[in-house]
Amino acid sequence: MRTSIATVCLSGGLVQKMYAAAEAGFDGIEIFEPDLVAAPQSPEEIRALADRLGLSLDLYQPFRDAEGVDEEAFADVLHRAEAKFRLMRRLGIDLMLVCSNVGTATLDDDEVSAGQLRRLGELAAAYDIRLAYEALAWGRFVDDYRRSWRIVELADHPNVGVCLDSFHILSRGHDPKQIEEIPAEKIFFLQLADAPALSMDVLSWSRHHRLFPGEGSFDLPAFLAHVQRAGYAGPLSLEVFNDTFRQTDPVRTARQAQRSLRWLADRTADLLGDEAGPLPRLPEVAAPEAFDFVEIKAPETSGVEVLLEQLGFDFGGRHRSKQVRLWTWGEVRIVCNDQGGSPAAPRIAAVGFDVADSEPAAERAAALMAPPVHRRTYAGEQALRAFSSPDGTEVFCSHAEDWIGEFDGGVAGTSTERGSARIDHVNLVQPWHSFDEAVLFYTSVLSLTPQPTQEVAGPSGLVRSQVMSSPAGGVRLPLNLLPTGQLAGDEQAHAQHVALACQDIVGVVAAARERGLRPLKVPGNYYDDLVARFRLSEDFVATLRELDLLYDRDADGEYLHCYTETVGEVFFELVERRERYDGFGAGNAPVRLVSQAG
Amino acid sequence: MRTSIATVCLSGGLVQKMYAAAEAGFDGIEIFEPDLVAAPQSPEEIRALADRLGLSLDLYQPFRDAEGVDEEAFADVLHRAEAKFRLMRRLGIDLMLVCSNVGTATLDDDEVSAGQLRRLGELAAAYDIRLAYEALAWGRFVDDYRRSWRIVELADHPNVGVCLDSFHILSRGHDPKQIEEIPAEKIFFLQLADAPALSMDVLSWSRHHRLFPGEGSFDLPAFLAHVQRAGYAGPLSLEVFNDTFRQTDPVRTARQAQRSLRWLADRTADLLGDEAGPLPRLPEVAAPEAFDFVEIKAPETSGVEVLLEQLGFDFGGRHRSKQVRLWTWGEVRIVCNDQGGSPAAPRIAAVGFDVADSEPAAERAAALMAPPVHRRTYAGEQALRAFSSPDGTEVFCSHAEDWIGEFDGGVAGTSTERGSARIDHVNLVQPWHSFDEAVLFYTSVLSLTPQPTQEVAGPSGLVRSQVMSSPAGGVRLPLNLLPTGQLAGDEQAHAQHVALACQDIVGVVAAARERGLRPLKVPGNYYDDLVARFRLSEDFVATLRELDLLYDRDADGEYLHCYTETVGEVFFELVERRERYDGFGAGNAPVRLVSQAG
Repeated sequence: MRTSIATVCLSGGLVQKMYAAAEAGFDGIEIFEPDLVAAPQSPEEIRALADRLGLSLDLYQPFRDAEGVDEEAFADVLHRAEAKFRLMRRLGIDLMLVCSNVGTATLDDDEVSAGQLRRLGELAAAYDIRLAYEALAWGRFVDDYRRSWRIVELADHPNVGVCLDSFHILSRGHDPKQIEEIPAEKIFFLQLADAPALSMDVLSWSRHHRLFPGEGSFDLPAFLAHVQRAGYAGPLSLEVFNDTFRQTDPVRTARQAQRSLRWLADRTADLLGDEAGPLPRLPEVAAPEAFDFVEIKAPETSGVEVLLEQLGFDFGGRHRSKQVRLWTWGEVRIVCNDQGGSPAAPRIAAVGFDVADSEPAAERAAALMAPPVHRRTYAGEQALRAFSSPDGTEVFCSHAEDWIGEFDGGVAGTSTERGSARIDHVNLVQPWHSFDEAVLFYTSVLSLTPQPTQEVAGPSGLVRSQVMSSPAGGVRLPLNLLPTGQLAGDEQAHAQHVALACQDIVGVVAAARERGLRPLKVPGNYYDDLVARFRLSEDFVATLRELDLLYDRDADGEYLHCYTETVGEVFFELVERRERYDGFGAGNAPVRLVSQAG
Repeated sequence: MRTSIATVCLSGGLVQKMYAAAEAGFDGIEIFEPDLVAAPQSPEEIRALADRLGLSLDLYQPFRDAEGVDEEAFADVLHRAEAKFRLMRRLGIDLMLVCSNVGTATLDDDEVSAGQLRRLGELAAAYDIRLAYEALAWGRFVDDYRRSWRIVELADHPNVGVCLDSFHILSRGHDPKQIEEIPAEKIFFLQLADAPALSMDVLSWSRHHRLFPGEGSFDLPAFLAHVQRAGYAGPLSLEVFNDTFRQTDPVRTARQAQRSLRWLADRTADLLGDEAGPLPRLPEVAAPEAFDFVEIKAPETSGVEVLLEQLGFDFGGRHRSKQVRLWTWGEVRIVCNDQGGSPAAPRIAAVGFDVADSEPAAERAAALMAPPVHRRTYAGEQALRAFSSPDGTEVFCSHAEDWIGEFDGGVAGTSTERGSARIDHVNLVQPWHSFDEAVLFYTSVLSLTPQPTQEVAGPSGLVRSQVMSSPAGGVRLPLNLLPTGQLAGDEQAHAQHVALACQDIVGVVAAARERGLRPLKVPGNYYDDLVARFRLSEDFVATLRELDLLYDRDADGEYLHCYTETVGEVFFELVERRERYDGFGAGNAPVRLVSQAG
C-alpha cells in the first residue's frame, strides 16, 4: 500500500511541507486547501513540484457544508464546487474530501443528502473527479460513518464514495467492525490519526490533540485490520491536527509520521496473520528486559565517579582506546566518558538496552527511520549500532559480554558484600516538542509499552511523566515532560536520573554515608505527615528520617527510596521495592523537586 | 474585608510564596498542605515568619475523604485529622478546609455525612479548630454547595461550617443565588477563582485552567454580591490552579492576584450600590474611546518613517527636548523615538489612550498596582503618567492637546486630500506567561472588555487572539498569544502592528504605491479562492489583486485591508470598514502569516 500525509500535519509553507513529506519517504500528500490558498506558487507549479518530488496528490480537502441544505443554498454549493473542480484539474487531483455538513444543514434527511451528493457527483464526473464523503464526529446531522455510508449507498453514483477517518470514528466510540461490510471499491480514502484519552469536547480534541498512530490511546491496529478486511487498497494517509507539530521542523515531523505508519502497518499485519503486510514487514524484536549500561558524558565526570564510589560501585576498568571508564555494582554498569567538549556538564549521553541479538534490533530501528549514530571503533572492538532518540540520547541495542572485554584494569567480578543491584529505571527529561515523538520511538523501535501518564507539581511547574516499560517490567523508562516555560537555563529542572534497585536500602545508605555520601535532605514536615498518612512504627519512621529515606505504600507493597545530590544534570536514586510494588513513589516527587530547587 | 491567597497559586517554595503574598499586599494566606510538607522550615518557623511579614494564616487545606465512609474507615479519618489538628496548633491556624469525599465515600446519605462531620467537629473543638466543609464539583456524592450546606445544617455543630468556592459552584452551572440563604456565621470561608469557558471534564479544567477574577468567563461580581448579601465578613481568598502561574515569578503573580481582588471588590460594590465596598473603592474612569498616540522606539527608526511618508503621513514636528518626532494623518499620531539603545529594532514602546481626565485614570492604575513608568520631563513640559503593561508596553492615559505643543516645525494641521484616518486597532503580541495577566490589566486599569477569543493557524503554530475593546468600539486592542515554542529569535513572529482606518482604501493604497509603498504580496491562489467563496465582480477582484488587498464579508458588512512590510518588529495595516463590519478579517490571517514568513 502507499503512504500519504495531509499537509496540515506539517509546519511551514506548502512547498516546505512537500519537501518534508518527500524526504520522509511518503508516496503522496493530501492538499489542505488553506495551505494552497496561502502559497505564492500557482497550482501548476505545485503540480510540477509534486511530480519532480515523486509525490502523488491524493486528495484535495476539505469541501464543507455540501449537503442537507435547501435548493437555494445548494445552488451556491454547486457554484463553489465547480470552482474547486476546475482548480483540482489544474492541480491534477481527482479526489475531493466532502465533509458532512456542520454549519448550514437544515434538512435531517438521508434522501435529501443522498440526492445532493448524487448531483454533486454528476458535476464532478464531468471533471473526472470523485468525491469521498466523510462523517465528521461533530457533523450537524451526519456524525457516524455508518450513516455516511448509508447516504453514499443511496446516492448510488460511481463518483461518490466514503472517506473513513479513525479519529472521527474512534473518538465517538463507534464500533469500527462494520467497516468490513462496506465494499472495498466504495472506500475512496482512509485517514489515520491517534489521540490521547481526553474528556473534552470532540472538536477541540480533534483540532489540537490528535497524534500519529502509536502516540495515543486509540487501538489503531484493530481499526486498520477492519479496513484491510474490507479490501481497501488506497493509500494509508495521516491527518493529524496538533498544536506541537504545527510548531516543529516539518522534516522531523514527517519522519515521525512515516515511522508511525510503518509501525502501524506491521502491527496490523501481526493481527491479521498477514505475512506480507500492507507495508514491508519490520524485523521482529522482543522488548529488552534489562538495561545493559548507562553512559554519562562531560569534559569532566569525576564528580559523578565520586558519587559512584560513595554508593559502593567497583571500578570496572579503563577503555582500551577511549577516555572512558566503567563502574559496576551487581548488574549495573555505568560508563563515564570524558571525551569531547559536549555536553558541558555531566548528562546521560547513551542508554544501552540488553537485547539478545542486536542485529535485527538495529535493522528494525533503521527500518523505522531512527537516525543512526556513528562512533569511531578500532580494530578488535565491537562496533555497536546505536540510534539517536528524539531528545538526542543515544540508544544502543547491546549486550555487555560483547563489549566489556574492552575495559582493562578494573576489579574482576563484583564484590558481593553490598548485595546485588540492577538498574531499576532511567528517567529522561523530554523537551516539549519531542515528547510524543519519544513515546512513538520507544514503542516502535524497542517495543516498550506506554503506561498511563501522571502529573507531578514542582515548585516551577507541573511535570508530566510517561513511563515506558517492557512486558515483564525489567525495563522502566519514565519520560518526564518539562513545564513549557523551562526551555533552557535551569539545570536542575533538566536533570535526569538513574535509579538503582538494591535489596537492603537501609544498609546500603548507611554504608554510603560512611563513605561520605550526602543524600538529598528531606524536610522534617515530610516525616510528620508520613505518620499521619500511614500508621508506621515510630522506630521505622526514625530510621527513615535519619537516613533521608522517602516512603510509599500501596496495595501491592512498599517502596523506600532516596536521592543523591545532582552533579551537572544527573543524579542517582536508590530504591528498594518490597513485595510487588510497581510504582515510583510519585507522591514524593513534589518533596524531591522542592528540595532539589533548594 | 481582608484579602488572602492560597499558596498553591504561586510558584516556588513556601517561604518564597509567603514573601510574594506579603509584598503584593495580601493580609493572609491559605497553607496548601503539600507546600508545607515539602518545606524545610518547621511549622513554628513558618508561623513566626508569617507573623513578621504581617500575614495571617487563614486556612489549612485540603483535608480529603473525611465523610460518607463506614465506621472502620472513619476511625482512620479521626486518626489523620487529629495529627493535622496538632500540626495546625503548631502553625497557629484555627480553620481547616474539609473537601467533600471523592475517593473513599461509600455511603450516599446526608445523615451519615453530617454525623461524621459533627464528630470531627467535636474533635476539632478540643483543639479550638473549626472546619469549613466544601462541595467539590467532582465530589463522589456531594458536588453541590446546597447539599454541603444541608449537611452542615444537619451536623449542627458550632465548629462546622461551609466553605464556598466560586469555581466549584459556577463550573457546574449552579445558581449562586441561594448562597444568600446561608447564615453569615456558617460561611466559614470563601475561595474565589475565575475560569475560561471550556468544555472539558471539570477536574482537568479545575486543576489546569483556573484564572484570577477578571481573566476568565465567570460572572464573579454577581457571585460575590450573593456572598456579601449573605453577610459573609471573612477574607476574600483566591484559590487558582493554573499551569502558567506555577511557572512564573511568584511576586508578579501575587500582584496580579491582588489586582484581581481589588477590581472584583469594586465591581461588586457597583452592583450592590455599596459606596464603601468590601475593599477600598477605585477611582471611577470611563473606558477610552480613542487612541491618543502610538510610540515606536529603536536606536534608528528611519525605516518606519519611510513607511509613514509612503502611507501619506504628515511630518508633525520634532520634540523640543528629546530625540522624538511626530507623524500625523487625520486623528492618527505616531511618535518615533530614537533615544536609547533598547529595543534594538523598531517596536511599539508605548500606547496612549485618550482619556478625558488623566488624573483619576492614573490614580486608578496605581490603586490596581500597575507599575508606574518614569520618563524625564523638562520645565514646561507635561508630565504624563504612564504604567507598564504586563508585556512591558507602556500605557499612557493622555490627551493630545496636553502634549502636542511640545513638537515644533511640523506641518500645521493635516492635509485633507487623503481623507481622514484614525487608529482602528493596535495589535500587541503577548508572551505566553503574561497573556492572562494582560487581559486583567486592560480590563481593570482601562475598563476595556474582553471579546471571545479566536485561533488562527500560522505556518509555525496556532496564534490565539483576544480582542479587548471599549464599549462603543472606539478602542480595539487585539492581544495575540504566541505559539509556545516561539519564545525568542523569530522577529516576524513577534511583530506587532498598528491598523489605520481610512475611508477609501483603494485610493489610499494606489497613492501610497505611487510614493513607493510595497504592500505585503498576496498570493494569486487567494484571489481564485475569493471568487469561489463570494460572488464578487471580476473587476472588483481584479482591483483587489492589483493592489494586494485582502477582503472579508459577513452579515454586518465588508472589510478591505492590506499590510505593509515589517520594519524591525512593527508593521502597519490599512483597513476600510464598510457598513457595520466589526471583525478583523481573521480568515485572512493565515495568508498574511505565510506571506510574512516568506
